[in-house]
Amino acid sequence: MVKQERAARTRQKLIRSAAEVFDREGYALASLTTISARAGVSNGALHFHFASKTALAQAVADAAALRLRDIVAQPPAGGSLQNLVDTTHQLARQLRADVVLRAGFELGRDAGRERPTDVCGHWQDWVEHLLERAAGTGELRTDVSTLAVATAVVATTAGFEVLARRDGDWLSRQTIARFWELLLPTLATRELLPALKPHGTH
Amino acid sequence: MVKQERAARTRQKLIRSAAEVFDREGYALASLTTISARAGVSNGALHFHFASKTALAQAVADAAALRLRDIVAQPPAGGSLQNLVDTTHQLARQLRADVVLRAGFELGRDAGRERPTDVCGHWQDWVEHLLERAAGTGELRTDVSTLAVATAVVATTAGFEVLARRDGDWLSRQTIARFWELLLPTLATRELLPALKPHGTH
Repeated sequence: MVKQERAARTRQKLIRSAAEVFDREGYALASLTTISARAGVSNGALHFHFASKTALAQAVADAAALRLRDIVAQPPAGGSLQNLVDTTHQLARQLRADVVLRAGFELGRDAGRERPTDVCGHWQDWVEHLLERAAGTGELRTDVSTLAVATAVVATTAGFEVLARRDGDWLSRQTIARFWELLLPTLATRELLPALKPHGTH
Repeated sequence: MVKQERAARTRQKLIRSAAEVFDREGYALASLTTISARAGVSNGALHFHFASKTALAQAVADAAALRLRDIVAQPPAGGSLQNLVDTTHQLARQLRADVVLRAGFELGRDAGRERPTDVCGHWQDWVEHLLERAAGTGELRTDVSTLAVATAVVATTAGFEVLARRDGDWLSRQTIARFWELLLPTLATRELLPALKPHGTH
């Protein structure tokens, strides 16, 4: 393995290890020594890649933002509303499975310190963009405000993620589907509604 | 002032000071010295009242649970659904204004340590109870699941609270009203709907 490749792999290992320690102990208590030991590298190697814990948090948040980008970039299986439903399911699945994504959402909201990339803010931008597209293609009922829907979807997603730290069921497929079963009749035109799948198409 | 009264006041000052420091710096980083200095008492006095930071966190969470109990115990201005709307507005207002309530919600969800009283869990119990009552009195549409509504309300409240740490607008009257404008048509019977006030009656 050439030197550059090895350096990139070490960097990735450190990002994953940092995400695990942030997720388990919280950012404030996470120690760089625990992170480097968990990654199987020396403290010196950690400091070669990341000048500070802040830099490491920034790298975790950036990695989480890339993963979110992959999630929202999946080719849609239907129109914009079904795409929104499918993507929230996919996001919930990934939040359960992927510690880097989870730590990225967490880091963006911890108060009392400099904040890295706002992963949840990216999510909000995408939800708003998709809802505007749904309005443009006539999928959304005309008496519904895209802003109100975006507010509800973003707040609910953030709530699910936070509540799941105490009880994982909050990010289950069933919980997400229950939310969409409740909300879709308010959003979708009468013609579109029967075709929509609150449990997702994947 | 008799000795017992003074002790009770010191205890209250310490709880408030702890809530402020937890809220600003996070539980993990909060130091007992900062908390006692902020309350204007000695370290010894703090330790007389609270054996550990865990005990202090428990006291903050208990105080928050009492404040939540006061919020949900307000005499309702209308039926159960309007009561639910009014109470979420009141909760949002109090979360903006009252650092003890806010810290109580925060403490209940921080992972990676023993958890004190689950204030958000109490909120969830009350929301479910009220929705069952609304179903019982025929305010809720018969095709709506109380579980689905409770899930959406609790997740959204938790989300608003968390997102407001970055941007206070998430707990504004307008944001809460927007959520209810979206959700109420799905929940309330056609007869009841025109009488309901998404902005609250207070």
